[in-house]
Amino acid sequence: MNATQLNVGIIGAGRIGKVHAETIAFRVPEARAISIADVNREAAETVAARCGIPAVAESADQILANPDIQAVLICSSTDTHADLISRAACAGKHIFCEKPIAHSLAKIDAALAAVEQAGVKLQIGFNRRFDPNFSRVRTAVARGEIGAPRLLHIISRDPVPPPISYVKVSGGIFLDMTIHDFDMARFLIGDEVEEIYTAAGVMVDPAIGEAGDLDTALIVLRFRNGVIGMIDNCRQAAYGYDQRAEILGAVGKIATENCYPNQATLSLGDGVRRDLPFNFFMERYTESYTAEVRAFVLSVIEDQPTKVTGLDGRIPVVMGLAARKSFDEHRPVRLDEIQ
Amino acid sequence: MNATQLNVGIIGAGRIGKVHAETIAFRVPEARAISIADVNREAAETVAARCGIPAVAESADQILANPDIQAVLICSSTDTHADLISRAACAGKHIFCEKPIAHSLAKIDAALAAVEQAGVKLQIGFNRRFDPNFSRVRTAVARGEIGAPRLLHIISRDPVPPPISYVKVSGGIFLDMTIHDFDMARFLIGDEVEEIYTAAGVMVDPAIGEAGDLDTALIVLRFRNGVIGMIDNCRQAAYGYDQRAEILGAVGKIATENCYPNQATLSLGDGVRRDLPFNFFMERYTESYTAEVRAFVLSVIEDQPTKVTGLDGRIPVVMGLAARKSFDEHRPVRLDEIQ
Amino acid sequence: MNATQLNVGIIGAGRIGKVHAETIAFRVPEARAISIADVNREAAETVAARCGIPAVAESADQILANPDIQAVLICSSTDTHADLISRAACAGKHIFCEKPIAHSLAKIDAALAAVEQAGVKLQIGFNRRFDPNFSRVRTAVARGEIGAPRLLHIISRDPVPPPISYVKVSGGIFLDMTIHDFDMARFLIGDEVEEIYTAAGVMVDPAIGEAGDLDTALIVLRFRNGVIGMIDNCRQAAYGYDQRAEILGAVGKIATENCYPNQATLSLGDGVRRDLPFNFFMERYTESYTAEVRAFVLSVIEDQPTKVTGLDGRIPVVMGLAARKSFDEHRPVRLDEIQ
Amino acid sequence: MNATQLNVGIIGAGRIGKVHAETIAFRVPEARAISIADVNREAAETVAARCGIPAVAESADQILANPDIQAVLICSSTDTHADLISRAACAGKHIFCEKPIAHSLAKIDAALAAVEQAGVKLQIGFNRRFDPNFSRVRTAVARGEIGAPRLLHIISRDPVPPPISYVKVSGGIFLDMTIHDFDMARFLIGDEVEEIYTAAGVMVDPAIGEAGDLDTALIVLRFRNGVIGMIDNCRQAAYGYDQRAEILGAVGKIATENCYPNQATLSLGDGVRRDLPFNFFMERYTESYTAEVRAFVLSVIEDQPTKVTGLDGRIPVVMGLAARKSFDEHRPVRLDEIQ
Repeated sequence: MNATQLNVGIIGAGRIGKVHAETIAFRVPEARAISIADVNREAAETVAARCGIPAVAESADQILANPDIQAVLICSSTDTHADLISRAACAGKHIFCEKPIAHSLAKIDAALAAVEQAGVKLQIGFNRRFDPNFSRVRTAVARGEIGAPRLLHIISRDPVPPPISYVKVSGGIFLDMTIHDFDMARFLIGDEVEEIYTAAGVMVDPAIGEAGDLDTALIVLRFRNGVIGMIDNCRQAAYGYDQRAEILGAVGKIATENCYPNQATLSLGDGVRRDLPFNFFMERYTESYTAEVRAFVLSVIEDQPTKVTGLDGRIPVVMGLAARKSFDEHRPVRLDEIQ
Repeated sequence: MNATQLNVGIIGAGRIGKVHAETIAFRVPEARAISIADVNREAAETVAARCGIPAVAESADQILANPDIQAVLICSSTDTHADLISRAACAGKHIFCEKPIAHSLAKIDAALAAVEQAGVKLQIGFNRRFDPNFSRVRTAVARGEIGAPRLLHIISRDPVPPPISYVKVSGGIFLDMTIHDFDMARFLIGDEVEEIYTAAGVMVDPAIGEAGDLDTALIVLRFRNGVIGMIDNCRQAAYGYDQRAEILGAVGKIATENCYPNQATLSLGDGVRRDLPFNFFMERYTESYTAEVRAFVLSVIEDQPTKVTGLDGRIPVVMGLAARKSFDEHRPVRLDEIQ
Repeated sequence: MNATQLNVGIIGAGRIGKVHAETIAFRVPEARAISIADVNREAAETVAARCGIPAVAESADQILANPDIQAVLICSSTDTHADLISRAACAGKHIFCEKPIAHSLAKIDAALAAVEQAGVKLQIGFNRRFDPNFSRVRTAVARGEIGAPRLLHIISRDPVPPPISYVKVSGGIFLDMTIHDFDMARFLIGDEVEEIYTAAGVMVDPAIGEAGDLDTALIVLRFRNGVIGMIDNCRQAAYGYDQRAEILGAVGKIATENCYPNQATLSLGDGVRRDLPFNFFMERYTESYTAEVRAFVLSVIEDQPTKVTGLDGRIPVVMGLAARKSFDEHRPVRLDEIQ
Repeated sequence: MNATQLNVGIIGAGRIGKVHAETIAFRVPEARAISIADVNREAAETVAARCGIPAVAESADQILANPDIQAVLICSSTDTHADLISRAACAGKHIFCEKPIAHSLAKIDAALAAVEQAGVKLQIGFNRRFDPNFSRVRTAVARGEIGAPRLLHIISRDPVPPPISYVKVSGGIFLDMTIHDFDMARFLIGDEVEEIYTAAGVMVDPAIGEAGDLDTALIVLRFRNGVIGMIDNCRQAAYGYDQRAEILGAVGKIATENCYPNQATLSLGDGVRRDLPFNFFMERYTESYTAEVRAFVLSVIEDQPTKVTGLDGRIPVVMGLAARKSFDEHRPVRLDEIQ
C-alpha cells in the first residue's frame, strides 16, 4: 500500500465503470480502487478481478459508509446520479460523476447544494475536454492563436442510434447526446450561451420519433460575447463516429479532424481510400477517459478546483432544455427562460 | 471566321467582363466576341486588344442593336442587369447575366417576363455550380452515393471585406455574398428551401454595421424534403478564401476542401505547414468561369435549356430577403412570406 | 496583327504539338503561330483550324525557310530533334525543342554546337520545372527553407506502359521516362550528379523485357555536394500518374503530393475515399506546358537566357546512359565514364 | 495471485525495461513481473515501486535462478544480450530480448543454438511490426490488396542523433538504427533480401564520421522475388521522428504517414499549419510496445511460435553487415557473402 495513494470507491461496473476502474488500476498510480459495487454483482466481481480491486461492495451505500474511501466515481445509471452525489457529499467523499447529473434542474440543484455544503470536490464526466484534439482547439482560443472567435462549428454524430428502449429513458437527444456538445461549446469559446435556436427532425428511424425524440439536429448558439455557434448532431453516421470542431477567429481558424486507427492510404484503380475512423467513443476517446480521471485524482490530492465543476454539469442541461423548447415552439429561446 | 461560331457581344469590361472575354477568346472555340462595351471606354479597349475583339461599341445599346450578335454577356454593374436583360430579350439576343439579376423581385420578374416572351435563353452567372469540387458533391447526391441527404454545410468566407462604398450599394451581405451559397444549397440538395433562420452580427468592421449591413452570419435552411442546411459566411478570413461544402446522407457523407496553388508540405522544427489556399474567386474559381460560359455557348448552339435558369436567379434573391427578414424579426421566416 | 508578337512556327502537330499550339493561340498573347507543319498534313490542318494558325506548311523546311518566323517549336518525333535543331539554328531561328534532344551524345553535341555558333536561343521541353508543385520545392531549397539538402526522393510512375512498338524506339526507360526525373533531380538540388547506381527489372510486362528494356527501376544518385538522391520509376501505376518529390534538409523537409481533379472526400460504410489523381501528363502538367512556352517566348522577346538550356538537355542523356550502364554492369557508374 | 498469469522476470530497468515493466503491470493481465534486476539497483527499485513488482533481484543470475520465473524480458545493454539469451535458455526460461541480439554472427548463432537446444521460446523486440500503421501495410500485401509488390520505400529518420559515446558502441548506424528497417522490409514484403547496395555519408555531425560511423544513408534492397526496396535513414530530422513506408504493387499502392499528437490544423495569415508529429519512439510506438509484449506472453501461454523469431533477429544483422560492406567496397553486396 502506498501512503500517498487516494482510496477510491467505484459505483457502477458497466461499460464506463469498467473503463474508469482500468484507468485507476493501470494508469493512475496516484490512486487505487479499494471497492466496487454494482446492482449486477457479477459485473462488479469481473471488474474487480480484472483490475485487482480487493473488495466488491454489497451496495453503493456500503461504499459510501466505508471510512477508508476518500473519493467515489459514480458510474451508475443517470437516474441515480443526483441522489448519489448528495449522499456521497454528506458522507464527505469527493465525487467524480458521469454526465448528466440529472434531467431535472431541481434534482441537479439539490445535489449541487449538498456538494456545496459538504465542501467536497465534484467533477462531472465531460471527458471530451481532455481529448488532445479538442484541448488543442481550446488552447488556440485561450492563447489568442486565432484571435477573437467569431463562428464555432461542432460536428458530433454517432455511428448508430441507441436501442429504442434506451431512447425512451435517455432524456432526449439534447440531454443525452448534445449535452457533450453544449459543454464543448462553452469550453472551447470560454463564454456562456445566451440563446438557442433548434432545427431538428427524425431522419434516421421513425421509431425514435414515435418515442417522442429527435435523431438529427442543427442547433444555433448565440454566446454573450457575440460568437455564433452551431452544433450538428445525428444519431447515425454510416462511416463511424464523427467528432470535429472548427472555430473561425479574427486572425485565423482552427479545425480538428477525426482520429483513425491507422494512417495508411490505399491507392487502387477505382479510387484512393483509407480505413474508417475510430468507430465509437470507447476507441475514440480512450486518452480522454484516462486524463479526466487522472485530473480528478490530482485535483483531490493537490486540493485544487476540479476542471469540470458542478455548474459545468448544470448549464448544459439548461441548454438541452432550451434546445427542446426552441424546437417545440419553433423560435429562438433564451437560456434565462429556462427555470 | 468560323461559320459555326456563336457571335457574342460583351457588356461590361470590368473584372468579370475581362474574365469572360478571355474565356471566349482563348477557351471556347465555339464562340467569338465581336463587340464589347463599357461605360469606361478605355477598359473596353484594353480588353478588346487583349482578346482580339474586333469592335469596341459606344454603348450597350449599340451591342443590342448589332444584328450580327446572337448572344450577350451582361457583366455590367448589378443595377443595370434587369433592364439590360429585358432589352436584350426584346432584341432577340440570348443572354448570360452575372448574378444577381436585381435586388428587387419586381425588377427580376419584369426581366424574366421579357425573356419568357422573347423565347431567348437566359443563364445566370452562378459559376460555382461548375466548380469541379462542388459539382462532384452534387454528383454524389444525384447518384445516391451518400444516400438521402440529411444535413448540409456550406462554408463561404471571403478573405477581406469589400470597400464600404461597395457595401452600401451591395444590397447587403445576403444578396451580395450569400446569394451564391443560397444557389449552391439548392443545387447541391436538388430541392427547395422552405424556411430560413438567420443568426448574424457585425464582427469584422463596425463601419459595415454603420452602413446597415452585417458581416458574419450563420443561416439555417429548412428544405421541403426535410433536409436541414447551414451556411456560414464571414466577410473576412485571415487565411484566404474559404469555400467548402459537406453533406451527411443516410449512407455516407461527402465533403470538399479548399484548393491550393501547390501540394507541397514543409516540415520544420516548429510545425508542419503548407502555403495558403487560393486567395480569392479569380484564382479559386478559374475553371468554373470557363465552364459556365462554355456551357452557355453550347446551350445556345445546341438549343438546350441553360444550366442556371432565370428562376435559379430569382429564388436566391427571395432567400436573401428572407434571411434579412429573419435577422430583423429574430424568428424563422418562411420563403412564402416574401413577395 | 500585333507588332510586338513573336512569330512562331510549329513543327509537329501530334499530341504535344497540339498542346503548344493551343498555348500559343490562347494563353500567350506575346506570340502567335503563323505556320505549322506535320508529316501528317491532316493533323497539321486540324490544329491550324482549331488554333487559328493561318498557314499549314508543306514541311519543316518550309517553316525554317520562312523569313517571318522568328522562333520554332520542335514537336516532331525524337529522331528528328537534333537535326532540326541544327537546321533551325542555321536558319537563325530561336528554338524550343521537346526532350530528349537525341539518344546519342554525338548528335546532341552537333546540335548544341550549331546553336552555339548561330547564337540563337534554345530551350528544352523539361516542362515539369514549371509545375507549381516542383517549383515550390525548388524554391524551398533555393531560399534555404529546409537548410542544406541531404536526401532527395523522386517518385515518377506512369499509369500505363506505352505500346511495345513505342518501347522499341524509345531509347529505353532511362532516356524516355527517367530523363524527366534526371532533369528534376538536377533542378531541385541545384547541383550535378557524379555517380549513378541502378536497380531495375521487368515487372509490368515481359514483352518490355523482350524488347530489351526495363519497366521498373530504382536509381540512386550521388551529387557532387554529397546529397544522395533516389528516383523511383514504374511504367504502370494502377491508380494513375504518380509524380512526387521530397527533400530532407538540415532544418526540415519539403514534400509534394499528387494533384487531384477535385478535393472531395467520400466517407462510406466501408472506408473513406476520394477520386483518383489526374491520370496522366496532359491533365497533370497542364499549367507547366503553358508556363514553359510562355517562358520561352519571354526569353526570346526580352533577350534573356532560357530557363532550360541545351546543356540541361544534354546532361540527363548522360545520366540515362550511365543508369543503363550501371544496370548492365551491376555496379555504380560515374558520369565521367560516359563519353 | 492469478494462477493463469505468466511469471516474468525483467533484466534491465533502463528506458525500455521501464516501458515493458509498465506494460506487464498495467496492460497485460495475463502476466505479472515478479522480479526485476539492473546493474543500477536504484533504477530497478524505482521501476519495481512504480509497477508493483514485489522483488528487486541482485543480478540477472538471481532472476535466471528463480524457479518461479517462467519467462524473462532482456532489456539490458546490447553487449549482454547474446550471453543472457544462452543462459536464460539453459535455465529453461522463455525469452523476450531487445534487438539486436549481438553485433557478431558468431555470438548470435551461439545464442540461437542454446535456444534451439533448450526448446524455449524466443521473441526479438522488433516492435514496429506491431505498430497499427505498418501492420496495416503488411496486411495489404498479405491479402493481395495491392497485388504483387514491386517497389518498397521505408523512410526512417530519428529526430536527433544519439550522443557520440553511444555512437561508438552502437555497432554503427546499420546495426543500431537500420536494423529495424531491415526487419520491416522483410516483414512487409514477406520475402528475403538477396543483395544490398548502400549510398551513405556523414551529413549531420562530423564527430559521427570521426567515430567511424555514418549518419545518413540510402540503402537499396534486392529481394529474391524481384522486389526492389529502399531504406532512407538519417540520424536527424528537424521536424521529429519520421517513420513511413510505401509499397507499389501490381494493382495499387499502400502508404502510411506519420502519427500526430492531435489532428488540429491552424490556418493563419501566413500559412496553414499543424503541430509536429510524435517526437520519438517512446511516443510514436507506444501501442507497439504493448502489443509485442502481449504477443510474447500469449505465445508462451498458448504455446504458439513467437511472431518475431531468433532467425528474424539474425537476418537483419547479416543485412547490416552487408550494408556496411557495400559502403566500404562501393559495390552491391550479396547477403551470402556475409558469414
